[in-house]
Amino acid sequence: MAQMTERMQELFNTVRTAILSTATADGSPNAVPVGAKKIIDAETILISDQFFNKTLANMKANPRVAVTFWEGHEGYQLKGSVTIETSGQRYEETARWIQEMSEKAGFPLKSKGAVILHIEEIFGVSPGPGAGKKLV
Amino acid sequence: MAQMTERMQELFNTVRTAILSTATADGSPNAVPVGAKKIIDAETILISDQFFNKTLANMKANPRVAVTFWEGHEGYQLKGSVTIETSGQRYEETARWIQEMSEKAGFPLKSKGAVILHIEEIFGVSPGPGAGKKLV
Repeated sequence: MAQMTERMQELFNTVRTAILSTATADGSPNAVPVGAKKIIDAETILISDQFFNKTLANMKANPRVAVTFWEGHEGYQLKGSVTIETSGQRYEETARWIQEMSEKAGFPLKSKGAVILHIEEIFGVSPGPGAGKKLV
Repeated sequence: MAQMTERMQELFNTVRTAILSTATADGSPNAVPVGAKKIIDAETILISDQFFNKTLANMKANPRVAVTFWEGHEGYQLKGSVTIETSGQRYEETARWIQEMSEKAGFPLKSKGAVILHIEEIFGVSPGPGAGKKLV
């Protein structure tokens, strides 16, 4: 497992959207923007699934994902594996959180599952010679 | 091959950043933001490589990629295969374009290659019941 620094966690919370990338088991890549995201602890994040389609099929067949986020010239990529929870306390809390988000946004949103990323590696994605280098 | 509509091309040109996602041949996904992007024609886009690291290794081993872009609630994903040009007229033009971009930005940028995406499929990534559906 790899731990996000305080600064990485701050940026993750600040950005409106992160990118969740997945791949089929035989390597066809996919990426989607995700807004319903939160930090569970320094090595675990949660993403709620409202509309995942290929992303969900990919994660079921191949749990390896990358979550990328940035602001200006500073960015990070979290790599690891996911588990998907569609019942239990964490899912119920996620469903309530998305229900509240839906009411605030005036846009129909319903959580179909809580995607839990167990972070294994962290890379930089800031432009420059260090781009793509492993940080943690 | 699949062709972008006028509206897709307009949005691709408008967004500051698109997401280039790749995967290793055995399915470990990656995604990075890209700003140096242009449309060649309705079924072909060009991305300049300044800082690709895992992305470049992935594309050499596995040319399948996805390029995702969105603004607000409207977004699209272009899927296809890439070829990488590191010499010739198109690369030379790209190198000049990035040199000009570098001078304007006051930030050191140098094109290492022109990544040419041949679009094969186009999906929607707008939130809602149609998310992830194939459009073209």
